[in-house]
Amino acid sequence: MVGLAKQEINIGMIGYQFMGKAHSHAYRDIPFFFDSEAKPVLKALAGRNESKVNKAAEKMGWESTETDWRRLIEREDIDVIDIVTPNHTHAEMAIAAAEAGKHIITEKPLALTLEEAKAMYRAIQKNKVVHMVCHNYRFAPAVQYAKRLIEDDRLGRIYHFRADYLQDFIMDPSFPLVWRLKKEVSGSGALGDIGAHSIDLARFLVGEISELVGTMETFVKKRPLGEMAGGLNAEAAKDQYGEVTVDDAVAFLAKFSNGALGTFEATRFAGGNRNKNKLEINGEKGSVRWDMENMNLLDVYLTDDEPGLQGFRTINCTEEEHPYVGVYWPPGHIIGYEHTFIHLLYEFLQGIAKESQPSPSFLDGVRNQAVLQAVEQSAESRRWVKVEQFD
Amino acid sequence: MVGLAKQEINIGMIGYQFMGKAHSHAYRDIPFFFDSEAKPVLKALAGRNESKVNKAAEKMGWESTETDWRRLIEREDIDVIDIVTPNHTHAEMAIAAAEAGKHIITEKPLALTLEEAKAMYRAIQKNKVVHMVCHNYRFAPAVQYAKRLIEDDRLGRIYHFRADYLQDFIMDPSFPLVWRLKKEVSGSGALGDIGAHSIDLARFLVGEISELVGTMETFVKKRPLGEMAGGLNAEAAKDQYGEVTVDDAVAFLAKFSNGALGTFEATRFAGGNRNKNKLEINGEKGSVRWDMENMNLLDVYLTDDEPGLQGFRTINCTEEEHPYVGVYWPPGHIIGYEHTFIHLLYEFLQGIAKESQPSPSFLDGVRNQAVLQAVEQSAESRRWVKVEQFD
Amino acid sequence: MVGLAKQEINIGMIGYQFMGKAHSHAYRDIPFFFDSEAKPVLKALAGRNESKVNKAAEKMGWESTETDWRRLIEREDIDVIDIVTPNHTHAEMAIAAAEAGKHIITEKPLALTLEEAKAMYRAIQKNKVVHMVCHNYRFAPAVQYAKRLIEDDRLGRIYHFRADYLQDFIMDPSFPLVWRLKKEVSGSGALGDIGAHSIDLARFLVGEISELVGTMETFVKKRPLGEMAGGLNAEAAKDQYGEVTVDDAVAFLAKFSNGALGTFEATRFAGGNRNKNKLEINGEKGSVRWDMENMNLLDVYLTDDEPGLQGFRTINCTEEEHPYVGVYWPPGHIIGYEHTFIHLLYEFLQGIAKESQPSPSFLDGVRNQAVLQAVEQSAESRRWVKVEQFD
Amino acid sequence: MVGLAKQEINIGMIGYQFMGKAHSHAYRDIPFFFDSEAKPVLKALAGRNESKVNKAAEKMGWESTETDWRRLIEREDIDVIDIVTPNHTHAEMAIAAAEAGKHIITEKPLALTLEEAKAMYRAIQKNKVVHMVCHNYRFAPAVQYAKRLIEDDRLGRIYHFRADYLQDFIMDPSFPLVWRLKKEVSGSGALGDIGAHSIDLARFLVGEISELVGTMETFVKKRPLGEMAGGLNAEAAKDQYGEVTVDDAVAFLAKFSNGALGTFEATRFAGGNRNKNKLEINGEKGSVRWDMENMNLLDVYLTDDEPGLQGFRTINCTEEEHPYVGVYWPPGHIIGYEHTFIHLLYEFLQGIAKESQPSPSFLDGVRNQAVLQAVEQSAESRRWVKVEQFD
Repeated sequence: MVGLAKQEINIGMIGYQFMGKAHSHAYRDIPFFFDSEAKPVLKALAGRNESKVNKAAEKMGWESTETDWRRLIEREDIDVIDIVTPNHTHAEMAIAAAEAGKHIITEKPLALTLEEAKAMYRAIQKNKVVHMVCHNYRFAPAVQYAKRLIEDDRLGRIYHFRADYLQDFIMDPSFPLVWRLKKEVSGSGALGDIGAHSIDLARFLVGEISELVGTMETFVKKRPLGEMAGGLNAEAAKDQYGEVTVDDAVAFLAKFSNGALGTFEATRFAGGNRNKNKLEINGEKGSVRWDMENMNLLDVYLTDDEPGLQGFRTINCTEEEHPYVGVYWPPGHIIGYEHTFIHLLYEFLQGIAKESQPSPSFLDGVRNQAVLQAVEQSAESRRWVKVEQFD
Repeated sequence: MVGLAKQEINIGMIGYQFMGKAHSHAYRDIPFFFDSEAKPVLKALAGRNESKVNKAAEKMGWESTETDWRRLIEREDIDVIDIVTPNHTHAEMAIAAAEAGKHIITEKPLALTLEEAKAMYRAIQKNKVVHMVCHNYRFAPAVQYAKRLIEDDRLGRIYHFRADYLQDFIMDPSFPLVWRLKKEVSGSGALGDIGAHSIDLARFLVGEISELVGTMETFVKKRPLGEMAGGLNAEAAKDQYGEVTVDDAVAFLAKFSNGALGTFEATRFAGGNRNKNKLEINGEKGSVRWDMENMNLLDVYLTDDEPGLQGFRTINCTEEEHPYVGVYWPPGHIIGYEHTFIHLLYEFLQGIAKESQPSPSFLDGVRNQAVLQAVEQSAESRRWVKVEQFD
Repeated sequence: MVGLAKQEINIGMIGYQFMGKAHSHAYRDIPFFFDSEAKPVLKALAGRNESKVNKAAEKMGWESTETDWRRLIEREDIDVIDIVTPNHTHAEMAIAAAEAGKHIITEKPLALTLEEAKAMYRAIQKNKVVHMVCHNYRFAPAVQYAKRLIEDDRLGRIYHFRADYLQDFIMDPSFPLVWRLKKEVSGSGALGDIGAHSIDLARFLVGEISELVGTMETFVKKRPLGEMAGGLNAEAAKDQYGEVTVDDAVAFLAKFSNGALGTFEATRFAGGNRNKNKLEINGEKGSVRWDMENMNLLDVYLTDDEPGLQGFRTINCTEEEHPYVGVYWPPGHIIGYEHTFIHLLYEFLQGIAKESQPSPSFLDGVRNQAVLQAVEQSAESRRWVKVEQFD
Repeated sequence: MVGLAKQEINIGMIGYQFMGKAHSHAYRDIPFFFDSEAKPVLKALAGRNESKVNKAAEKMGWESTETDWRRLIEREDIDVIDIVTPNHTHAEMAIAAAEAGKHIITEKPLALTLEEAKAMYRAIQKNKVVHMVCHNYRFAPAVQYAKRLIEDDRLGRIYHFRADYLQDFIMDPSFPLVWRLKKEVSGSGALGDIGAHSIDLARFLVGEISELVGTMETFVKKRPLGEMAGGLNAEAAKDQYGEVTVDDAVAFLAKFSNGALGTFEATRFAGGNRNKNKLEINGEKGSVRWDMENMNLLDVYLTDDEPGLQGFRTINCTEEEHPYVGVYWPPGHIIGYEHTFIHLLYEFLQGIAKESQPSPSFLDGVRNQAVLQAVEQSAESRRWVKVEQFD
């Protein structure tokens, strides 16, 4: 391979399903598209099932495998631990990795509970490693550009943040009781899985949420037992049923510290919406609208546009003015879902190489978890709940 | 005039601004487009300012005028009292009209308070007149068609009702303190003015709301004094300011009696959204989406569509299968805002002619008001509030 | 009726089907919405079938009827002759009306042939009457606003005009051989019926077409005999078939006198497109896009918008800056198909009252017909054809 | 690297700009996403400028470089020659590669002229190598799915094919005279660069074009000298100007062998349209619409949908029923421009591994070139021209 010396960063990843694939692909693409300081090396992949982890490693280009994640963390040739396993495993793994001095990235939500999340945060603080939580949607160039508009005061004081995250993949009552539907493994349902993404977008774009009131619903209360089978598909057993212990849908109203009013909804029962992660922000000087299913487009309205010519502009965020996207293709040549992971992991590697802490960090993860906890408390107490402001 | 005998119904209308214009126009168009049993006669228009009411009457085609609404109600040649004045006047006028044996239609919201609304309902019940409250948006053919799909069980069990009613006409802090911003005249702000429409659509399409939790915001708390100046425009005084006593925005979460989860938002601070009255309903078998700014279109998703060909259909509801619209133009030739009033008032006149009570009636108005009251109570108490189920 | 004296203009209309209804309705609405100088009076309606014409007159509010259009033209109490009959009758009627000194408006296309159209033009020239041809689509406020942008040089030099007019109402081979499918009655098919509208929009917005090359297709060559039955519906006979003698579809390339390149297509065989009359214009400084099925919206792109914020703005042309629409409802409250006729006939009446000749005039009709003729000649000769520039 | 033995295919690529990047990336992604029979090895990259080619090779992961493409072709360790250089070089390179027994893929258009294209075709025929021309857009899953619908007779007899390919990257008169604007290097302008893509989509989806009539325009006739600078950007010299010798825009009407009517337009002067490659097909039983800027979406209308529920369905072609896309992410998680190259090159490698010839082949390239030539001839002769039907 023709090449110059760059800082190589050795990655060890735990897990290899849907998110494992997204992360692996992103690591491979970073040096191709970006002039990064660091070059990721797909050093080792860990998973309990030896034949499956080997097959995944071959397919995705990992150099070696481990069947015990603790062994992976012990390896001296590993710089980074990337955790893409179900939610209930994040805390133990991340804390162990931090104590071993590894930089850490985990899938979202950070943990099962706020308590766990804080423990994870204390571990990374103590061990001074670089850390991120994988809220990838804020890395869509259109979202990044919205952030820039807000930072440049192009929207003025923010009045409204409005986010619906609509999916429909478990609407069929015969969809099985996979780990995502068990509270002890996933913490919550639509709330932590997709609502957490909307919360991250809200925090990224508008700021901290001070208090909220919410409700959670489980429309289908029993399901056949079964397992995830790649992506968001699953295979169901025939005769055995179990209880769904998480929410199918959640909605909450929120007040932001800066006075904005937020409305949030996350559901897996919105037929026809495969991955409709959408938001609208209304400010004094302008509004923006975005939707992940058409992720390259940002609708922007500017209040001081010339009368008669006022309307939302549909901007295809594939121009050089739009964050990240300049490294790809000419304007109008769109990118996709996987690119959000490229951008996130690029920032992670840059952070390690330049010894600066990128966002969203474990601190963001903790604060996100504080919102998740407040929603659960409010759904229980049927009252407004103050969100713990963690520093 | 060439003509056959039809039942003539003499209308007396109180008020002649925005809604007065919409109603007057609709009466004129009904016999042109519909083969109605009844023919409305624009008999008399009432308003306090003699020169203005005369000018309005001439422009809109009313035969005579009155400067005292009580005199209008006393007139024996009047069959119907149509009330399009600000909200705080509805109750007194409607009760007087009922006692005079007139059929009554009032603009929404029915009244300032639930108590007033109930008094109005008792009056029409006692006097056995035909009555309607003017929730015109349910008369968009696309909404009527959505109703038919739901009644035909094409959506199955309803999981979600989601409505945002977004406007921006008072965002400018120099927009004056018109009657719509004074609690003593309008009862509430965005809540009663536009949120009431979303509530009506929810009740029409999904059913009664059993409980809710909500919040109300006033972003701009002081404004220059001033008056409405036609439509939603206004003229401001220079130096005098007063306090805004109603909500600029409101949001609430709701549970329907049938188990559906509702999310509602109504705001006049959503820049770029002139009259974005939109809703989405997700059911077990399908979903519908609608938006008043493109009111002829209904997006419909059917869960049992052939795999590979699943997606929202954008239906231009201008076909003969779509309610009301067959009387107008060929498919694809759209209708507008004013037609919703034509349909509503057509049903009102048909109700009078056929001695059957149409919807939305004063009973709908009372139930709507009960939801409005619950929202205000919840915003005050910061808790879930049960909606009074009025029969 | 309360009222002040205005100039009354007595209308006599020949025909009462689809266009008759559109015109009748528009006359009724003009004084309601506009402060016009003139007030139209629906004086007399002419049609051969006495019972049908009487029924139509009653329904639409005409004062009297005639069964012989010549008698209508002779009536002294008639100021205007409005011709909404099939195309082959326009010339004879219009010439007779002109000679009787009546102001004239005819449906489009002006005539069956360019020769006929010129004869009509000479007649109105000689008799100094006010004249219009009913190209209603240019009266959509969004189109009028596009015109203003072009006149204000907001698009700069025009490079491209692109128009597709797509319908599907005759795709079913069992749709009968109505008058619109017979060359001797309609002159041409998609070309004169809908292509003529695109040509009018092109001439209005960009200017004269100097030369063109085109082709015409008839996909279904035989159809059952039958008649129009209101709007664009029809009833077919069972056993008798006849030959379709007009085009089902037409397409042509055009060069404008100002150097712009035009592409045109008109078809009744574009399934799913009920009345998709759309256009895009690309100029040096900006572009506009419009589509009659969403007629209130105009997409505008301005080349000198700030980098990063460049994209088509979707403008809901219901603001006071947009032509005509200020007389109706507040911004975001849309209007429909029928309003294009209100605006056109308002201009016609204003022209009569103020003795000024409005557009589109018979001269526009002749020039439009010259383009239609050139398309037919080119389809025949399979070569570029120069369009006769009639003055 | 963990791994099983697969057939390795050694790639040698000539050129490394925009298309070189797209191809390189695709080769890298194929084994990651697909279970392909073959594994591409990025063996050698050729370019005249040693430092630039070395830098590109390092960045994109090529094992070695050559500064003379003839030397690349001579190398025994190369199985495939991938040609991504400007159009005027394709023929010589491809013929040399064929004679050396290499499998070949070239960027489109295949050649400068039909004569060249035929020579290339004869060379690959004689040497029995696998060959493709890189019309990537037909590999969008939505386009592939449209193809399947047509093959399954879901659209019935095709009446209309309508394609506009709109760009705006050279509208600024100061954009320099790059190779794409010189006839001797590129053959033609918008015609061969983007119109060729629309022609490929037409041939893929509808069939062969039998005859056509067209016109070509050059709006800006002189430009400053300059070079491409990555993607579609360029740098201009200050003082030197040269003549643009290709078309800025082209439009043509076409008749397909199966009787369908085609309309085509390709332009680089359509402001606001960055890469608006769009098409609509109308058939007896249904219609499809597609647009590369929203490439995952396919609008489908089916004539026999239930009355009242008829409308275009917007299908997000990210489901397992949609070609290729099942290997990526769950439904609703979109892919981008670069994936079209992954699919095309996957088919190329599969063809080599399985000794079967994929499409689009050089034969497709020749037939495409025959259409390009006919357009140029027609623009010259101003008459309809028959397209040579090459077998």
